[in-house]
Amino acid sequence: MILGILPGVEKMYREKIKVLDCTIRDGGLINNYHFTTDLVKAVYRAACDSGIDIIEIGKKLCESDEYTREKYGKWNFCDEDDIKQVVESHECENPPILAVMYDVDRVDVSSLLPSDQSVIGMVRTACYVLDIDKGLDLVKRSKDLGYQTTINIMASSAAIETELIEALEQVNNVAEVDYLYLVDSYGAFYSEQVTSYLNLYKEHAPNKELGFHAHNNQQLAFSNTQQAIIDGVNLLDTTINGIGRGAGNCNLELLLNFLKNPKFDVRPIYKTIQEHLVPLRKEMEWGFNDIYGISGHLNQHPRDAMKQRANAEIRDDCYDFLLEATS
Amino acid sequence: MILGILPGVEKMYREKIKVLDCTIRDGGLINNYHFTTDLVKAVYRAACDSGIDIIEIGKKLCESDEYTREKYGKWNFCDEDDIKQVVESHECENPPILAVMYDVDRVDVSSLLPSDQSVIGMVRTACYVLDIDKGLDLVKRSKDLGYQTTINIMASSAAIETELIEALEQVNNVAEVDYLYLVDSYGAFYSEQVTSYLNLYKEHAPNKELGFHAHNNQQLAFSNTQQAIIDGVNLLDTTINGIGRGAGNCNLELLLNFLKNPKFDVRPIYKTIQEHLVPLRKEMEWGFNDIYGISGHLNQHPRDAMKQRANAEIRDDCYDFLLEATS
Repeated sequence: MILGILPGVEKMYREKIKVLDCTIRDGGLINNYHFTTDLVKAVYRAACDSGIDIIEIGKKLCESDEYTREKYGKWNFCDEDDIKQVVESHECENPPILAVMYDVDRVDVSSLLPSDQSVIGMVRTACYVLDIDKGLDLVKRSKDLGYQTTINIMASSAAIETELIEALEQVNNVAEVDYLYLVDSYGAFYSEQVTSYLNLYKEHAPNKELGFHAHNNQQLAFSNTQQAIIDGVNLLDTTINGIGRGAGNCNLELLLNFLKNPKFDVRPIYKTIQEHLVPLRKEMEWGFNDIYGISGHLNQHPRDAMKQRANAEIRDDCYDFLLEATS
Repeated sequence: MILGILPGVEKMYREKIKVLDCTIRDGGLINNYHFTTDLVKAVYRAACDSGIDIIEIGKKLCESDEYTREKYGKWNFCDEDDIKQVVESHECENPPILAVMYDVDRVDVSSLLPSDQSVIGMVRTACYVLDIDKGLDLVKRSKDLGYQTTINIMASSAAIETELIEALEQVNNVAEVDYLYLVDSYGAFYSEQVTSYLNLYKEHAPNKELGFHAHNNQQLAFSNTQQAIIDGVNLLDTTINGIGRGAGNCNLELLLNFLKNPKFDVRPIYKTIQEHLVPLRKEMEWGFNDIYGISGHLNQHPRDAMKQRANAEIRDDCYDFLLEATS
């Protein structure tokens, strides 16, 4: 494989690479986390049986009178008991680490159990460049409770470089950050941008292991993830069948085929696609289409594209969308 | 853009790159070339208005009692009058070169007009490695009649390397070949294979300008085309909306966005998608799906995958397809 170009690599695969499945967490952005428990169990089982390293099962946000489990789905809150119900549904010899996502300003760290009392093993904090201090505070407090941590800087393609560099330098000095993520929130990167941003990350945060999270607006989520591997990234985000907001993510099954690490088995993933994701595609939409392609090329937040896709009358009017977006 | 890495490049784009649209020719493999004349005219108009360099409008095969225009569609035969009807439907200041495809053993060169009496400007000959002598004979005879020529060696990923090298060395010595194509017929390549095959092509056919034709089985047609650009290829095959047999081809509109050459205008392409390709998608299927992803990964001819997709009962049974294909 491509890793053969790295000095001293004698196998078809790179042992250090870890795969994170965020099927439920990123897919939940489409349906407000209203997955059935059966679906979540099936995804957990697939992650177990295929040897995935980490599974992110949702967000862990604060409940409130406006922000309820009924309206926003239980995987927006990831209560211990809900996760336990899933974990206990399937026996697993080497279970994946369970991760949840934290959003700045929407969580309550004081309600987080110490990690040794929780089924959760990793807390991933998502924030924009300008919220990096808030994000790093959450990382520190999660780490203090014993969790593995990541900081996922969103929309890096839309950040001003001097500010991004400042954020990276701060991250570099926070020992509690285990992984620093490059996130292509808008699906705007070509492979050259993956490389140039990663070079920036390596230059200004040399102490940190890197992760990469792609979006598939231009049919480049999988290839950009390969580029991140070439550039030395060892933690890779994927979802089953590429499910995820807008154009979706890097397809887990395609990546496992590419990685060739014998610890992975792609068959349980395809089984889950056939049995659970194919029916789900009738209810939910994800994946590349023309509108998202334009949105990605223009380095735009996907909200306008998603709005157009949600309107049955104009959902395929890509020419109109292009004119509007560039007017 | 990515070409900035090449020495002496001072623009956002590489001037030498030519884009070939094979929407009708590759798309016709799905519907036996039964496109309406209106659709073909719309594609021609889009190619004109967007500044595409070459448009391949069909195959130029022999008619026979079994192989009729009625059954196999007129764009399998590309009669001068049919092409003229299309060309004359739209005034174009800098019209694209009109290309047709030749298949070994299915054409009659003696019926080809001298190029100065024809609307056709380029003949592309497709052949397998083992038919290289037949293919080169067609190339020579087309060139003798004044046409630009290409030789498109199909299924290179399935060829035995020593035989492929012999074929490349033969091509290298035939002055009549203008372009030599690397064709990823099975959609099996990752970017590293694009590079390693192109290195082989450059080593054994150093006299030839190169072309690249991708398939999108693993969502890599566009990214592999970019890799071919990085590796120095200057003639790129694309189709509008990625239409083409099986998982389809590299999307023309995505590539134009990437190329940034001001001579191209992507808007007429999106207009044609909205007005003509979106309705066509209700009648014909193309593009990535799970079955083609497996087929590409396994470096298989797409025929089994296409057969499964054609069967409504099992078309999405990717797990069964994987087990069958690897049993």
